[in-house]
Amino acid sequence: MRLLASLEAMAEVGLQPDGSICRRGFSAEDRQGRERLSEWLIDAGMSLRIDAAGNLIGRLEGSEPNLPALVTGSHLDTVPTGGRYDGTLGVLAGLELVRCLKDASLQLRHPFELIVFADEESTMVGCKGMAGTASGDPSDYTTSNGDPIERNLARLGGDWERLTTAARSDDAIAAFLELHVEQGAVLEQRGDSIGVVQGVVGQRRFTIRVCGQANHAGTTPMDQRQDALVAAAQVVMAVQALALEHPGDPVATVGRFEVWPNAANVVPGEVQCSVDLRDLDPEVLASLSAQLEERLASIAEASGCSVTMEPQFSVDPTPAAPLLMEAIAASASALGFSHSALPSRASHDAQELGRRWPMGMVFVPSHRGLSHSAAEYTSLEQCVAGTSVLLEAFLRLDAQLSG
Amino acid sequence: MRLLASLEAMAEVGLQPDGSICRRGFSAEDRQGRERLSEWLIDAGMSLRIDAAGNLIGRLEGSEPNLPALVTGSHLDTVPTGGRYDGTLGVLAGLELVRCLKDASLQLRHPFELIVFADEESTMVGCKGMAGTASGDPSDYTTSNGDPIERNLARLGGDWERLTTAARSDDAIAAFLELHVEQGAVLEQRGDSIGVVQGVVGQRRFTIRVCGQANHAGTTPMDQRQDALVAAAQVVMAVQALALEHPGDPVATVGRFEVWPNAANVVPGEVQCSVDLRDLDPEVLASLSAQLEERLASIAEASGCSVTMEPQFSVDPTPAAPLLMEAIAASASALGFSHSALPSRASHDAQELGRRWPMGMVFVPSHRGLSHSAAEYTSLEQCVAGTSVLLEAFLRLDAQLSG
Repeated sequence: MRLLASLEAMAEVGLQPDGSICRRGFSAEDRQGRERLSEWLIDAGMSLRIDAAGNLIGRLEGSEPNLPALVTGSHLDTVPTGGRYDGTLGVLAGLELVRCLKDASLQLRHPFELIVFADEESTMVGCKGMAGTASGDPSDYTTSNGDPIERNLARLGGDWERLTTAARSDDAIAAFLELHVEQGAVLEQRGDSIGVVQGVVGQRRFTIRVCGQANHAGTTPMDQRQDALVAAAQVVMAVQALALEHPGDPVATVGRFEVWPNAANVVPGEVQCSVDLRDLDPEVLASLSAQLEERLASIAEASGCSVTMEPQFSVDPTPAAPLLMEAIAASASALGFSHSALPSRASHDAQELGRRWPMGMVFVPSHRGLSHSAAEYTSLEQCVAGTSVLLEAFLRLDAQLSG
Repeated sequence: MRLLASLEAMAEVGLQPDGSICRRGFSAEDRQGRERLSEWLIDAGMSLRIDAAGNLIGRLEGSEPNLPALVTGSHLDTVPTGGRYDGTLGVLAGLELVRCLKDASLQLRHPFELIVFADEESTMVGCKGMAGTASGDPSDYTTSNGDPIERNLARLGGDWERLTTAARSDDAIAAFLELHVEQGAVLEQRGDSIGVVQGVVGQRRFTIRVCGQANHAGTTPMDQRQDALVAAAQVVMAVQALALEHPGDPVATVGRFEVWPNAANVVPGEVQCSVDLRDLDPEVLASLSAQLEERLASIAEASGCSVTMEPQFSVDPTPAAPLLMEAIAASASALGFSHSALPSRASHDAQELGRRWPMGMVFVPSHRGLSHSAAEYTSLEQCVAGTSVLLEAFLRLDAQLSG
């Protein structure tokens, strides 16, 4: 089985003793993976180029050369202890698709492109560069190896000085489809083979600072305390309640939580914590943020502590294009795979491409929802199902889209 | 004013640029303070000795030499950024008392002793050694300078090998009274000059471990989380509620609180925190501990997290002797000082002495309850009031006690 062979060959690159994969963006392993793929793409008949944002772009011309391209892609870079499917499956499914077209001697009407985006796991410089949403300030890029983005881009054949040339025109791309493992357990729990992604959720990140009065845990009576931890515990409960009580299925998390002076015999004087809100609907994010602010004010008033909320960053949701969702769902139905719609609550290259061009994503199940670990697992049957749906959807779009 | 002059002279020893005092137990500053005091005690007519536990003991013989001693004392060692009253006031009030007896050419019936206990702020080796409650295992002593207790005791003139010789007999001491600053704000808020201490509270310390499941803060829906921080927030609320709802005025504190993996984009998988319970009544401590265990079980059941509670240490309360509380209250009334009863919720040398001999403590107000800082403040008038009550109480006890 050809797809399995590609997955296994790519998993050798950066394989760690514990079975995890380490191909950090811009690393020697990252470059080795891209080189291995490049050989396969050339064998499959693609022409290759690398843009200024370090994206590796394989292209097949269409029978109607002036049409915009049908594009798929994902990433080959991983987190430090990544799995063998996250990103890689989408790239190798694209390769499989090109090989199938070649086997069938089939030329699409539209040009077809397969893209390996640069450094998805850290800076997302590749997809942002292509979408024209990348920052021009090098200090905005926190790279995993600590080197400046300029030097890192050069390692992939990119060129920081010419970064804006990576941004493509509105009429360059007709549709972008990305196949990815879900990284959650929704499909597995529903028993569905295919997820039709509704979009990539947006995110609001805040830092909450609760200031009370540090004091002796013995000599300070209960009614004379301004205990920052007691107030912050109410913040944690409020954040959970906000998400649970809101219609739909937003998620809200306090993940970072630090207490000062953090000693058993001292009433806590200060707590700092993060709040992370995610939803597909920008109005839900705005409403959750506003409700959070109100609840913090109530907690401050009742506790006597000051409670402040400072925005850290904000990422707008990227909705999928309805036409592409329909093509994915119809393809899955035609091929006999059970499917259902769900949001992507993790970031993907598609979120940036979708800000400019019609975007769709195909999810396949992740066993127990595990991701970013050696235990990440999607069965070969599930990988093949996703690849088949991706191919079928592109064939339908090639026929439907006028360009 | 002689007491003020002594306070100021002692505050020079270990004075830091920020106005705080640093005389850690066994340090050069600690020894310098004890030497300065020794000269004053000898001038005041006391005979001096240092016992094996490093306690500096000044003694005046009584007119009835076979009676047990009336004893006062406290400590001269401080925390790293201590104030000028904690411990020191009790020692210098004792010195003032001896000077007053000398000025008046008054000899008590009982012998009178003033003791500077060794290392109150860390190991309490001095008071424990004298009470016979000290551990014989050197590894039980966590000293502030990291040196072994054996070497530290030698620095003060003590002798680890002979530690048990510091323990005194049942009939050596008739009564122990300690004057100390409150280190809380109760007296100031009541507007009272003198606190008649009911005893030193006991303490139960636990470590709580909450284990859930760390997971992606984006891809894990709210109803599929085992969020250890949400469960631990309920623990914090429950600990506060326990103390507030219990009759009397116990205190309960979560002071140390640590979250893993502590990242904004990860649902917390584990929390460890401390719980500190203090009350004067051992039955209240037992009841609070039992109720805490019940509430943790409910939180575990509702949250799906495991919640365990491990005892760290337990210190029994030391009640004050009713006869000594009466002597203090009657003395304050006779001298015209407003007074009221309160527990001591901080540790003191008296808590160990009180396990063997009748114990009483006199508190004077701490401005805004601040302690263990340069901002610690008790006015000269308040210091003098406490010293006068201490003297009056000893005169009454000298007459009352048969020996």
